[in-house]
Amino acid sequence: MNVDIIKGASCGFCSGVMRAIKLAREAAQGDVRVYTLGPVIHNPQVVESLEKSNIISVDDIKGLSGGDTVLIRSHGITEELEEEIRRKKLNIIDATCPKVKRAQRICTNLAENYSKVFIIGISEHPEVQGILSRGSGRAKVISSLEEAAKEEKFRDAGILVQTTYRTEKFYEIVSELLKKGRVIKIENTICEETITRQEEVSELSLKVDLMYVVGGKNSSNTKRLFESSSKNVTSLYIETPEEISPRQLTGKKRIGIVSGASTPIDTVNRIEERIKKELKKSKKEGKKTK
Amino acid sequence: MNVDIIKGASCGFCSGVMRAIKLAREAAQGDVRVYTLGPVIHNPQVVESLEKSNIISVDDIKGLSGGDTVLIRSHGITEELEEEIRRKKLNIIDATCPKVKRAQRICTNLAENYSKVFIIGISEHPEVQGILSRGSGRAKVISSLEEAAKEEKFRDAGILVQTTYRTEKFYEIVSELLKKGRVIKIENTICEETITRQEEVSELSLKVDLMYVVGGKNSSNTKRLFESSSKNVTSLYIETPEEISPRQLTGKKRIGIVSGASTPIDTVNRIEERIKKELKKSKKEGKKTK
Repeated sequence: MNVDIIKGASCGFCSGVMRAIKLAREAAQGDVRVYTLGPVIHNPQVVESLEKSNIISVDDIKGLSGGDTVLIRSHGITEELEEEIRRKKLNIIDATCPKVKRAQRICTNLAENYSKVFIIGISEHPEVQGILSRGSGRAKVISSLEEAAKEEKFRDAGILVQTTYRTEKFYEIVSELLKKGRVIKIENTICEETITRQEEVSELSLKVDLMYVVGGKNSSNTKRLFESSSKNVTSLYIETPEEISPRQLTGKKRIGIVSGASTPIDTVNRIEERIKKELKKSKKEGKKTK
Repeated sequence: MNVDIIKGASCGFCSGVMRAIKLAREAAQGDVRVYTLGPVIHNPQVVESLEKSNIISVDDIKGLSGGDTVLIRSHGITEELEEEIRRKKLNIIDATCPKVKRAQRICTNLAENYSKVFIIGISEHPEVQGILSRGSGRAKVISSLEEAAKEEKFRDAGILVQTTYRTEKFYEIVSELLKKGRVIKIENTICEETITRQEEVSELSLKVDLMYVVGGKNSSNTKRLFESSSKNVTSLYIETPEEISPRQLTGKKRIGIVSGASTPIDTVNRIEERIKKELKKSKKEGKKTK
């Protein structure tokens, strides 16, 4: 039996993550240590390799002092933390993804012009926290249709969205908020790369009979890809090749692989290799039992 | 058998129509003739009574000349026609409904700030034509979900809506347009009275087993009330009491009456009387046949 393995065309880091890693590596030349606020990406191997290059992940800026170099990762940070960093006179490398930066600016702008601002997204996500902090106290995160339905009526509002949010869910929530107010400005801040990935997953999931969705279990954008894929086909959410078992592959003829925006292409390639290996093994065993 | 007749609380003229008739009557004092551009309301009896008070409906301004008084009815007119009236130096009484006037201003404003403007409404409706003319050539009318689905992608757009449009249909069309662009400003210009009427019809239609929807067959807002009512209960769209037949009433226990924004309360009352009369008759006949 011939099995096709189809990888999504946009697998690997998104441009925002790629840029953050590049900026970190560039800054950590010579004997400069670069402290990143939280891991640049949620991938232990990558973080380990960065550590060897003098790029160290820290949870907060408490232990740092003037002259130390701190890198803001692609998610961005809150306005308060940014001010704190400035007060401490740390060297800042701002690797906030330009699309996130734009969403932050839009939030500030909407808060200046509308009495309420809704940020559609996962409230605990660092990107959303960073955007929220720019809402002059007028912004609020909406994470579900139910939350939107519970909202009271408002006079006017601005709406924006986490850059990696699922497009359909965004539309759904906005449609609900439409009923609550008379003047609404909507800024669809979902990034183009996110949209491409989502479209790819939707298309690919209709063509395969098993989908591997690769990414950190704590990755918000990978979760959304998994949700989309699961609607159409049996889907498995994995972080490493070790999670692949021969049983998953039994009887499958077309297997898809897609990945979140913070998954190294290397991980995706190793997963592809592992699938091939397992298929080969089971083919041999199949022949033996004949 | 006891039959309940329930009239919608907001039956009768809406405030915009009431205001237009009041302005016309005030202007037509003494021997001043007032020419209205089209009938003030689509009701032959009312138009006839206005004619006796020197308020004459004309189709256009061709026959009029300087010094003549012309009344713009609640629907409003196009910017071009307004300029023509000014050029002709006619006396203008602007009875454009203030809510329509507001929608016209919003259209001008959206056209100044957005590359596209969508007016959700019935394209041939005079109100919509008037709003459209204020869109600096950037505005376009969308009349259905299908039309919205066919729209090409756009960078940014403003959306507004005919003041008497059906709220649910507006939301539906906006939800479709959401998918087409990234920056959208929505101005829900449906008037409060329209919303109240619609809510009333929706509630009442769930309580009765027959609904009379009263209004001109060419009245856009009455059509929408009829659509809403028909979803829940057998509904009859009538203009006059003469359209009521005993057969319609057979077996009905709760009968509702609602009316469009341009239906005189007098018509509604006469319809109520006619229903009562027919019910009485059939009761007597019922007794006779026993």
